[in-house]
Amino acid sequence: MTTSLNDAGTLMSYEMAEQPAVLTRLAARAATDMSAVRELVPDPPVGIVFVARGSSDNAAVFGRYLAELHTGRPAGLASPSLYTRYRAQVNWGGYLVIALSQSGATPEIVSTCAQAQAAGATVIGITNEPGSPLEEVSNLLLSTDAGPERAIPATKTMTAQMLLVATVVAAIAGQETGPETAELPAAVRSVLRDQHPVDELAERWRDIDRLIVTGRGLAYAAALEIALKIKETTGILAEGISTADLRHGPIATAFAGSPVLLINAGGPAAADIKELGSMLNVRGGQAALLPLSTSLPEPAQVIASVVRGQQLARALALANGIDPDSPQGLTKVTPTT
Amino acid sequence: MTTSLNDAGTLMSYEMAEQPAVLTRLAARAATDMSAVRELVPDPPVGIVFVARGSSDNAAVFGRYLAELHTGRPAGLASPSLYTRYRAQVNWGGYLVIALSQSGATPEIVSTCAQAQAAGATVIGITNEPGSPLEEVSNLLLSTDAGPERAIPATKTMTAQMLLVATVVAAIAGQETGPETAELPAAVRSVLRDQHPVDELAERWRDIDRLIVTGRGLAYAAALEIALKIKETTGILAEGISTADLRHGPIATAFAGSPVLLINAGGPAAADIKELGSMLNVRGGQAALLPLSTSLPEPAQVIASVVRGQQLARALALANGIDPDSPQGLTKVTPTT
Repeated sequence: MTTSLNDAGTLMSYEMAEQPAVLTRLAARAATDMSAVRELVPDPPVGIVFVARGSSDNAAVFGRYLAELHTGRPAGLASPSLYTRYRAQVNWGGYLVIALSQSGATPEIVSTCAQAQAAGATVIGITNEPGSPLEEVSNLLLSTDAGPERAIPATKTMTAQMLLVATVVAAIAGQETGPETAELPAAVRSVLRDQHPVDELAERWRDIDRLIVTGRGLAYAAALEIALKIKETTGILAEGISTADLRHGPIATAFAGSPVLLINAGGPAAADIKELGSMLNVRGGQAALLPLSTSLPEPAQVIASVVRGQQLARALALANGIDPDSPQGLTKVTPTT
Repeated sequence: MTTSLNDAGTLMSYEMAEQPAVLTRLAARAATDMSAVRELVPDPPVGIVFVARGSSDNAAVFGRYLAELHTGRPAGLASPSLYTRYRAQVNWGGYLVIALSQSGATPEIVSTCAQAQAAGATVIGITNEPGSPLEEVSNLLLSTDAGPERAIPATKTMTAQMLLVATVVAAIAGQETGPETAELPAAVRSVLRDQHPVDELAERWRDIDRLIVTGRGLAYAAALEIALKIKETTGILAEGISTADLRHGPIATAFAGSPVLLINAGGPAAADIKELGSMLNVRGGQAALLPLSTSLPEPAQVIASVVRGQQLARALALANGIDPDSPQGLTKVTPTT
């Protein structure tokens, strides 16, 4: 895709702006989705495993935390190479697999699901492309219904996956209603209208070539996703790290000058982020808190943080003369096997 | 700890040099360890979950791949914050938990194991400190028996954990004998004696401030560990990324100039590493293969790669006038909760 300098980042910002509508649509569908999930999975499974790559993998991390917390069974993430490269023979009896793929077409995701299903797993697929190969290996397919996504950085499909995975978890956990996201669409709209704090941060950090992005608990998923968005749109090596892991060694990179972006989405891990921020300030570290004026229940606040991070990634790209719609060398669907 | 410039890196290199002896000792104990594991876990568990932080978390990734591959049941990694911050109530019935901690004293590791055990899990603890708090929450405790480790970067305890976790997996998988590591101690000794290729790479990369370290399959664990070792000893922001994940976006950072260290430990994912190396060379990326002259079965080759990475981290630190024994701002035991 070729864009002129005037058009730079237009697709991405257009798709970001669609998020309140996409989230509203999904919230309206929550009761129907929950019924379908409950019919397929009437009792808590033995374990829940998410299968994904790229941005979808970060929605999977969000789902993994929510699933273990609310369903009361251990949850985890699949390693597709075990199936596509090592041909592992695994007994998946009693397990629920939740696969996330924007395109529904990444070969290793489809192949891993096919093998898990054949070995006893129930598979729920979440994709923006019903009718894609993922549908054939899913017992139930839920669409993020976000409309075509053409910018290379996933934005609206990503936040849609996060909301949908929270809805699926609520159903498996036997909750009466879906996640508390009534205020989310309006909050996302207010984030998108308020570009100023992000532009300030992008200006301050326009010349960096590395960045640590850190959060804990549910916000760890946002840290991973914001780091990925910055990496793919700007080329800055942004690493998402859990706040606890950061303190086991990698904090040396902050003391050596790497800037740190702190994600605080409230909830029971918020104190860890504050403590880390103080520690870095005392040691002369270059830390900034992701600016966020919304105040939502923790899972919704994590989704709002991801939107803020999309803005920051786009602003950093534009500040460096990069077109965030189609970063150098990337394609929309990465056919890893 | 205070060291003069002449002593810089002495402890780390001394402890690295002990690895052949530590690995020999553990291999000699394998049959006994396997009997103890089989007595505790006579049948494959419903799922296997590893609990760890820091370097131990990378040994856990190694174990997670081996466990799913050889025991035929899904394996994963715990998220301790769910227990220490969110107070998740989870049914661990039928699960095996394998906890790895050099000190056996990280509060969140001990607390997560205690909660999992109370909720039905069988717990195997792996530590260098028998008698530490981890012992109280383990049904079976295995010692890495590596002797006191005083340098801050974990070296001999890390490779010892990797070998021990492979032995534990072999026992659960019902294998007659432990992992094929007969040639490992001698191979590690030859790696340690041959410093030249690493010094060359350290000289080439002495001024970098960011680095991607990538591998796939079992070698992904080595990539994570080598990245962590470089981060903590040098302050370079080195991110360990799976080769497949790298291609879903983060490769933009390589096209933007970040150097890439490729880890090829043989095995069925080796072709992915070669393909990535060619792709980066074509695009003008700055990629180097971790130099390794040993030729061992894949799991042992991964352990040898980690040793090579320790050498590289130490050489990069010394090239930058940093004492790798006690990098700025780090302590040996990080008491995350």
